Amino acid sequence: TVDPAAASGTVRLAVIPGDGIGPEVTTEALKVLEAAAPSGVTFDQTRYDLGAERYLATGEVLPDSVLGEIREHDAILLGAVGGKPNDPNLPPGILERGLLLKLRFELDHYVNLRPSRLFPGATSPLAPHVLDAGEIDFVVVREGTEGPYTGNGGALRVGTPAEIATEVSVNTAYGVERVVRDAFARAQRRPRKKLTLVHKTNVLVNAGSLWWRLVQAVAPEFPEVSVDYIHVDAAMIFLATDPARFDVIVTDNLFGDIVTDLAAAITGGIGLAASGNVNPDRTAPSMFEPVHGSAPDIAGQQKADPTAAILSAGLLLDHLGHPEAAAAVERAAIADMADRSPGATRTTTEIGDAIAARVAG
Amino acid sequence: TVDPAAASGTVRLAVIPGDGIGPEVTTEALKVLEAAAPSGVTFDQTRYDLGAERYLATGEVLPDSVLGEIREHDAILLGAVGGKPNDPNLPPGILERGLLLKLRFELDHYVNLRPSRLFPGATSPLAPHVLDAGEIDFVVVREGTEGPYTGNGGALRVGTPAEIATEVSVNTAYGVERVVRDAFARAQRRPRKKLTLVHKTNVLVNAGSLWWRLVQAVAPEFPEVSVDYIHVDAAMIFLATDPARFDVIVTDNLFGDIVTDLAAAITGGIGLAASGNVNPDRTAPSMFEPVHGSAPDIAGQQKADPTAAILSAGLLLDHLGHPEAAAAVERAAIADMADRSPGATRTTTEIGDAIAARVAG
Ligand SMILES: CC(C)[C@H](C(=O)O)[C@@H](O)C(=O)O
Ligand SMILES: CC(C)[C@H](C(=O)O)[C@@H](O)C(=O)O
Repeated sequence: TVDPAAASGTVRLAVIPGDGIGPEVTTEALKVLEAAAPSGVTFDQTRYDLGAERYLATGEVLPDSVLGEIREHDAILLGAVGGKPNDPNLPPGILERGLLLKLRFELDHYVNLRPSRLFPGATSPLAPHVLDAGEIDFVVVREGTEGPYTGNGGALRVGTPAEIATEVSVNTAYGVERVVRDAFARAQRRPRKKLTLVHKTNVLVNAGSLWWRLVQAVAPEFPEVSVDYIHVDAAMIFLATDPARFDVIVTDNLFGDIVTDLAAAITGGIGLAASGNVNPDRTAPSMFEPVHGSAPDIAGQQKADPTAAILSAGLLLDHLGHPEAAAAVERAAIADMADRSPGATRTTTEIGDAIAARVAG
Repeated sequence: TVDPAAASGTVRLAVIPGDGIGPEVTTEALKVLEAAAPSGVTFDQTRYDLGAERYLATGEVLPDSVLGEIREHDAILLGAVGGKPNDPNLPPGILERGLLLKLRFELDHYVNLRPSRLFPGATSPLAPHVLDAGEIDFVVVREGTEGPYTGNGGALRVGTPAEIATEVSVNTAYGVERVVRDAFARAQRRPRKKLTLVHKTNVLVNAGSLWWRLVQAVAPEFPEVSVDYIHVDAAMIFLATDPARFDVIVTDNLFGDIVTDLAAAITGGIGLAASGNVNPDRTAPSMFEPVHGSAPDIAGQQKADPTAAILSAGLLLDHLGHPEAAAAVERAAIADMADRSPGATRTTTEIGDAIAARVAG
């Protein structure tokens, strides 16, 4: 995979447009990516047809050979995967565990990065008295390869009154320490330099103790970073009443899933929320995707907002060692959002064109 | 324990004031309880000195003999337990798992009931455009005796780089079916008759499948109740942007913990949120407590709002078979909240007195 210091030349980019609105938003993200690429950087794209449609047509989720090919790329851009809700031919978990989580686990995306900023022009569901208390600008570093997402657990006597089903959250010092260190490093690079661990140490005492001890153990390497801890339930309250208090949040895979959807909601909705599934050691390609799903109800109608996908492409540029191009994408998207007049509707393509033009201009 | 149909006479009430603001708010809750009691109903109170203070002084959390005595009561009123944050003598989990959760598990409080209403006069952190979309009035039926709260799991090689810590979520058909049936029955009694299962079936496939199948299996007993499902992450978004959509939410122990704190936040804060740890089979006393903690920073200063504790006493009356007295407590608390002038501060006692006077008057 690409060395960030030498990231000119050709970037081998795996593109997984996916289902529903995925292909539409991916088209716009690619458009902006091309517009923002530093001179000398070109993208050699390979498209992979994966998702609900392929599964329903062929029964294939992620063939090993495809995974092997994807692995040979420098980065992955993903639109969205997922079929119609409650499709009886698509049991819950098939695509999530077989494709999305499989990629995150196999490619060791241990940092699931989700920035949360309330951009000017975006509509928050929070009241003015909350918003006036301070700027919402934090990033969630969600662990991506452990926790309750490991697929451990099982079931006995299924379908009988004596059924028992378990889910096992697996947490290792190896897995926790590396994501904690990454979160500290990100906090160190931010003006406020504050790290908040979100967990539930008072109930999940084994995992909670491990997380808390490793935060304490890594902290001396980052003496400028202040450390805070809150329970996940209390985090809900603070996100709703005082989100400006957060700078960098580090948390486990499931808490991160929950926290980041609330974070997206308060900053204007998942239509704007970008994410990176990052392998900081660069032993495999990182994957960038909007937080939103495939929204099959509006697919193919040019109604989807491609901003989240475009911002995800910005995170991709940053990861590949092009922070200026990444910043240009973000600036262009922010300027576009600030200019949106409430009530006016633009097509997916129009929004993508407008942001691409700002990047180029 | 008490038979609701014959609930006159003496109610044996175990009172656990606890730590911090617990004793203050409990005093007001008892005051209102006495004022609201139907004629012929008296409370025979026994106080149990349990919580951080006792633990720090004696090393005792919940002696078996005390648990045995508490079990012989008709109901339990609890203030709040918990010591100073980060007290090195009070490791996380000691009181939570040894006292609060021990009571919930030993007394089979499988329905953790948390009503969420935005009362007139309460300040929501949500914006007017969200609040104007509809009334927030839902109840969360949180499972109380299973899930990731069972204390299953453990750790190996603690303190070494090879440490592994697990937490096991345990879900049984027995445990899920009974709480699901209780939630359906509650939905059936409400005007909108709508039940929403909140889970994460696309990742926690074993537990999620069990929950979903049991919701489907019980549904035919309640043909008037409509059934909905959303993932816990999407629930965050709906709670922040469209909370009026919810009527009865049924969910597991950990998701319930998270959902109810957000629910409390959007309806004016945990200072107003009541809860009941209910054993619907009445094989042991149910326990009523505010959702808030012991807030040691403001303890003993008459700054705590006793409304949540008072509303919890109302839930206790309802459970004991006195729905009219319960409604009178709720009406009095609502009237008190509606009359609060922003900025005016009253002492804990003043608020309790005012609500008790309204109940009596
Ligand atoms: C689709 C699902 C498996 C996924 C997750 O739970 O991680 C999604 O909610 C997300 O946040 O990326
Ligand atoms: C104190 C803690 C153990 C408890 C819980 O997690 O259930 C609390 O947060 C609650 O919601 O009652």
